[in-house]
Amino acid sequence: MTTSPAPTQAAPLSGVREAVRRTPAYPFTAIDAPIKLDQNESALDLPPELRALALERLATQEWNRYPDLHADTLRHKIAAFEDWDPSGVVVTPGSNVLIKLLTELAGLHQTVLSVQPTFSVYTLESSLLGAETVLMPLNPDFSLPVEALSAELGGGGPGLLFVTQPHAPTGHLDAEADVRAVLDAAGEGWIAVLDEAYHQFSALDGRALVRGRENRVSLRTFSKAWGLAGLRLGYALTSPALAAHLQKLVSAFNVNILTQTVAEVALEHPGYVRERAAQTIAERERVLSALRHHPVYTALPSQANFFLLRTPDADAAYRHLLSRGILVRRQDKLPMLEGCLRISIGTPEQNDALLAALGEISQ
Amino acid sequence: MTTSPAPTQAAPLSGVREAVRRTPAYPFTAIDAPIKLDQNESALDLPPELRALALERLATQEWNRYPDLHADTLRHKIAAFEDWDPSGVVVTPGSNVLIKLLTELAGLHQTVLSVQPTFSVYTLESSLLGAETVLMPLNPDFSLPVEALSAELGGGGPGLLFVTQPHAPTGHLDAEADVRAVLDAAGEGWIAVLDEAYHQFSALDGRALVRGRENRVSLRTFSKAWGLAGLRLGYALTSPALAAHLQKLVSAFNVNILTQTVAEVALEHPGYVRERAAQTIAERERVLSALRHHPVYTALPSQANFFLLRTPDADAAYRHLLSRGILVRRQDKLPMLEGCLRISIGTPEQNDALLAALGEISQ
Repeated sequence: MTTSPAPTQAAPLSGVREAVRRTPAYPFTAIDAPIKLDQNESALDLPPELRALALERLATQEWNRYPDLHADTLRHKIAAFEDWDPSGVVVTPGSNVLIKLLTELAGLHQTVLSVQPTFSVYTLESSLLGAETVLMPLNPDFSLPVEALSAELGGGGPGLLFVTQPHAPTGHLDAEADVRAVLDAAGEGWIAVLDEAYHQFSALDGRALVRGRENRVSLRTFSKAWGLAGLRLGYALTSPALAAHLQKLVSAFNVNILTQTVAEVALEHPGYVRERAAQTIAERERVLSALRHHPVYTALPSQANFFLLRTPDADAAYRHLLSRGILVRRQDKLPMLEGCLRISIGTPEQNDALLAALGEISQ
Repeated sequence: MTTSPAPTQAAPLSGVREAVRRTPAYPFTAIDAPIKLDQNESALDLPPELRALALERLATQEWNRYPDLHADTLRHKIAAFEDWDPSGVVVTPGSNVLIKLLTELAGLHQTVLSVQPTFSVYTLESSLLGAETVLMPLNPDFSLPVEALSAELGGGGPGLLFVTQPHAPTGHLDAEADVRAVLDAAGEGWIAVLDEAYHQFSALDGRALVRGRENRVSLRTFSKAWGLAGLRLGYALTSPALAAHLQKLVSAFNVNILTQTVAEVALEHPGYVRERAAQTIAERERVLSALRHHPVYTALPSQANFFLLRTPDADAAYRHLLSRGILVRRQDKLPMLEGCLRISIGTPEQNDALLAALGEISQ
């Protein structure tokens, strides 16, 4: 389709900003496998009776009409579920979109501050928008570097802070006092984001750390504990003042009627989420316990629906699991995560298969 | 929820960039009315048998799994339908998301060039991102100011050019030679976007103007002729080289499985689109013809699924129509559009109601 001859470095698409050119694409390659433990999805779908109810509702709607501009009904249902002011709720197609928009809000031309290793989307969006990215290394036990972050927050800014609890990709949960100390160090010039994608699997619910502070945001998602990754729905809980600015950056009519409808059905029947999260936590502890005395691999503690497995050779371990039909995610190229695979908690049967496959390795 | 006392101008959220603070929100207020002619939607939904097929397919899918990263199956079906290289197709939840991403790609720190009046999303995103916005006034007959644009394209840049055909909100279609002249004036330093949201209702299919040029993009949507505004799906047709950069800016897993599924069903049975577009064109010409000798109002020619109605008092005309159950869109605050309402073409019955309501006005 391209008619130009051998492409050169600068000329053909020199309208594309340099920051975009030099940023590599989001690193993800889809691979088919019978047991999929690579994306930290819920192993279980929305319960069948709720799926049926959602499909019934979808059948009654007008698909040719634009959805509500800001998905107000959905926002109000989320607000009621979370005990939050509806004016402080913003929804988008996945919380990764909110990460982009927050970077546009307060990172662009300013600073994006987080830890290292960190969730790749923070640094990807910062890089694409050409923001200054500052990453403070985690402590060796993966806990937050409270002093280093506080020093940066005190001197720097304005900018955007990302704190992830439980942390991804380590699964580590910090002491609430430490999380609070970091957020408190972020003064008015900072927008402080607490990314809580995995909070249902942990002992921390960070709403109390965010509530009542105009410049704080909790990010949450329907992709993990809610079992609805295919829907693409994430949300921010923040102050009405900050929500009003953030909402401007959300493209109009951004959440489609199908997603709104299914999520509304889930929010009307949220009991399954707590039940599933408890099952996932129990399975995680069973798996971690079974791996405690593994002769070769070390399973690291986690408060999420995944854990890190430290191996002497991540590539060999990855390929061994794949040969047994189990797909996991390599994280061994990240700082501090040498040899690490990230493994989602699956159904009991899937976890048994995982343990059996790992049990084959004895040296 | 906010605990701070009387808010001051600068302090509380000074992390929010000034460009975001000073940009007003997208101007849209939802109003209920029996006859909805305000958003240029299709008056008709996806045909019932296709809706049923889509719902059947939705019932077989795993909602707990992330969708395909870049919606590859959907992209390939769009490519086949449009006779385009699949590597040059990028999909997002609505083409307004693509407008934002193109502004990030080539407008930010650079120039966004378009005409005036123009589609509000171009200037909104440019303003939010703090890009330099340059708008050349349309000619008095709403045609493209070819010389002024060419001069700006020759001297300025790098940047992003938006050309809308048929133009929104005027409905004007330019001579193909004029569109080509403007696009040809955009050299390598420009990304030249031809926004074709309404092309099915016009005599111009701009693919030939975009094909084979690395820096050109056609924007298309499922919200108008396809009758699927509720789904939120737009796409770009461009070169593989430009698509690779643009795709980086698309949030991962951006198009959910529900939207992918319904759109795939529509693309497998696209016959209704051409048929509906022909009906809409016939209705548009019937309405414009009926209004030709209106004693007070002037209906302006259009090649889209809407038209402008010039009135002596837009507010009075708007309220009169609303009193008859008909909702339209005011455009009278835009440059050159004094007194203008924008009215979508509806079903024959809706259009009859519109004509009856307008027929009541004789002075």
